[in-house]
Amino acid sequence: MDETAALARFAAELPASSIPKDVRHASSRCLLDYLGIGIAAHSEPAVRIATEVARIGGGKPQASLLGGGRISLVEAATVNGVAAHVLDFDDTHEPTILHGTTPVMSAALAAAEWVGASGVDLLAAHAVGFDVAARVALAVNPEHYDQGFHVTGTAGAIGAAAAAGRLLRLDAEQMAHALSTAAAQAAGLREMFGSMTKSLHAGKAAANGLYSALLAQRGWISAPAGLEGRRGYWAVLSSRSDPTIATVALGEDWELRRNGLKPYACGVVSHPTIDAVIGLARVSGLPSNQVAEIRARVNPYVLELMGKREPCSGLEGKFSIFHCAAIGYVDGSARVRQFSAAAVLRPEVVALRRLVRIETDAGLPTSSAAVELVAADGRCWHEYVAAASGTPGNPLTDEQVLAKYIDLVEDVLPRASARRLAELALGIEEVSDVREITERFQVTASL
Amino acid sequence: MDETAALARFAAELPASSIPKDVRHASSRCLLDYLGIGIAAHSEPAVRIATEVARIGGGKPQASLLGGGRISLVEAATVNGVAAHVLDFDDTHEPTILHGTTPVMSAALAAAEWVGASGVDLLAAHAVGFDVAARVALAVNPEHYDQGFHVTGTAGAIGAAAAAGRLLRLDAEQMAHALSTAAAQAAGLREMFGSMTKSLHAGKAAANGLYSALLAQRGWISAPAGLEGRRGYWAVLSSRSDPTIATVALGEDWELRRNGLKPYACGVVSHPTIDAVIGLARVSGLPSNQVAEIRARVNPYVLELMGKREPCSGLEGKFSIFHCAAIGYVDGSARVRQFSAAAVLRPEVVALRRLVRIETDAGLPTSSAAVELVAADGRCWHEYVAAASGTPGNPLTDEQVLAKYIDLVEDVLPRASARRLAELALGIEEVSDVREITERFQVTASL
Repeated sequence: MDETAALARFAAELPASSIPKDVRHASSRCLLDYLGIGIAAHSEPAVRIATEVARIGGGKPQASLLGGGRISLVEAATVNGVAAHVLDFDDTHEPTILHGTTPVMSAALAAAEWVGASGVDLLAAHAVGFDVAARVALAVNPEHYDQGFHVTGTAGAIGAAAAAGRLLRLDAEQMAHALSTAAAQAAGLREMFGSMTKSLHAGKAAANGLYSALLAQRGWISAPAGLEGRRGYWAVLSSRSDPTIATVALGEDWELRRNGLKPYACGVVSHPTIDAVIGLARVSGLPSNQVAEIRARVNPYVLELMGKREPCSGLEGKFSIFHCAAIGYVDGSARVRQFSAAAVLRPEVVALRRLVRIETDAGLPTSSAAVELVAADGRCWHEYVAAASGTPGNPLTDEQVLAKYIDLVEDVLPRASARRLAELALGIEEVSDVREITERFQVTASL
Repeated sequence: MDETAALARFAAELPASSIPKDVRHASSRCLLDYLGIGIAAHSEPAVRIATEVARIGGGKPQASLLGGGRISLVEAATVNGVAAHVLDFDDTHEPTILHGTTPVMSAALAAAEWVGASGVDLLAAHAVGFDVAARVALAVNPEHYDQGFHVTGTAGAIGAAAAAGRLLRLDAEQMAHALSTAAAQAAGLREMFGSMTKSLHAGKAAANGLYSALLAQRGWISAPAGLEGRRGYWAVLSSRSDPTIATVALGEDWELRRNGLKPYACGVVSHPTIDAVIGLARVSGLPSNQVAEIRARVNPYVLELMGKREPCSGLEGKFSIFHCAAIGYVDGSARVRQFSAAAVLRPEVVALRRLVRIETDAGLPTSSAAVELVAADGRCWHEYVAAASGTPGNPLTDEQVLAKYIDLVEDVLPRASARRLAELALGIEEVSDVREITERFQVTASL
């Protein structure tokens, strides 16, 4: 089958008006969430370094950085991709653990600002690009990820090409060349988890997707079967694939419906455990120094992805189920400040994380956890979380999404500006020129 | 073992003076060859499009394009990598089919011009970067390539980081972060062979390697075991690996000794067949319209990589052993003009390529071929090539390297300029500032 051509036709030709209302709403929530995370991350070392390197070339001010300032087009996609991913707080496509919005939106936003696209065009580019990325991810799931590829970097590049290509008004043939060119640049290794380079996977996916679309717009010719060819994406990047899943019910089923926004700023597979410990702390009222053990039964991915016992940095803390459980218990929360360098060294948290025991159970989905709290005096509490908050089975309400955003930006944006940006994002379909949004990032720069 | 750290120490700390004389000479030949190919390719559509896209950002004139003009640093590495690879005429590391000089030199040349490095520093960066790329390639050879990865894109990025990082004077620790960051961006699919995107693998490898070194210089932190970690390069990008080979006799054995410069502008595995048909045409004196059959026994890679029976473009012709054999017979040569759009459609060549029969024999190395020429009247000639010209077992003489270069640039550079550039390349160790070389690319722009 011609998945490259079929996905290209879909990405190039689907009218924005035929995207269902719930999918459009999901897309606008993703945009708001993306903005909050990326703006909050503006002072992260990874973002600072990526910005410095992007400025070496001294390009024109073509596209806005989420943290303020404008740089050249493709470079903005890189830096914004790093920013929106480095806090490990961005959305998650539940079946594949793809963080789809970051690469797709980072490419789309830069392209949209550059061409002066409407809000509807940006929203459609995101919805379609996310769908392409998620379908590419599904076709090789779970072998691709199990093998060690970071799917946000690999499939993300192809989704980013679809989104950017749509905003550049590629026809279906050009779009196929863009998708194929992006497939040839697909990269990302799970070994990088816990280091700055994880976020670069998302940044480069955004930039490479946009770059591929710019090439295709000018006549670049790539292999026609970049995905399905004998030495194409399916065959080379996964030990097993089911390509039919990439195109089934295209334009009818939408993968944004299986996407979740994160309530906690860490690996998504830890979220049911965090839900559980927050609940147990509240119900038991037990001070952490009277805890004898926190015993969690979870999907095996949890230890595989988040097995760091003794994290030394905030970033490492995001990959430690032990820290996540401890800080969730102590603080009743697991947002950005729970993953600072100081937070992972707090004596109370360090002591508690050493009392966390993890048992794996392949029968549990990644969105579930069964947690037992044992007190020093022998009392015991249980909590079972079937669908972690933020997952498609238990989505954040619009109010929770807004509250997360406000929490993220309140130290960076004045309250009125923050509210106005949120209104524009959630009302993106009414925005006639995306620059109405991107110019507001500039405000943050001067604060 | 810590291959990432070991290769980083080697790349950062090996004194240029301890590179053996024969390796330095090989490196200077690579530079000359690289310049000729890249300059000749300046009018190729892929180079034109990549240049257009690179100029969108409007960056500063920091590094020279081989075809003339200066653009921003990282973008120059991309475009020069595309240019030096798009003719399929660049050097080949025999054990791995890595085209190492293109990504490594494209990164090194841009970095060297930017920092004003000496010729010795450029040469050392190339020799070391090539060695790193080739060792990374060897560690996963042949499974990585067999699986469908284009090793020039993957290992090339890591070699490019080593070369650029050396010119940016990274210490061993920074260098390890650079190599690891490059490993996380390693990409390239063999499906792209015969399309423009194959050349982009080399261009992006150069750019991503340079970019990784720029990040590392500013404090970027990557995973320490980017190569050898459980989800690192060895494990994820190959079904089997032998990492010890990556560090054995580091600084003593040099992979440039197993590198060959191509006499023909097409896939290297076709070269013994071309040698043979050129010899057979000369010996037999048989006009092509009296040929009944050309029967070649070759390594199975030949059909796998170059099996296109009816090429429609010059680029496809490079991936057609049938065209290569036919044009070699008719023209006694297989340089750039033998792979023009017109050349693959010449009736005499089309007729002859349909008389080419390929038999594969896994017992034959890729550098060998046994070819039989059968005339319409029943006469028969045989030729066995043990080591194709240009391979390490039968290297081009310095005069042949120079002749190839002159043939490539004679339509682009005035004779005196071409000669001077060749002198500078072959005498690179005497050049105090690499800009003496790169400023000469500018001359070509005004012609």
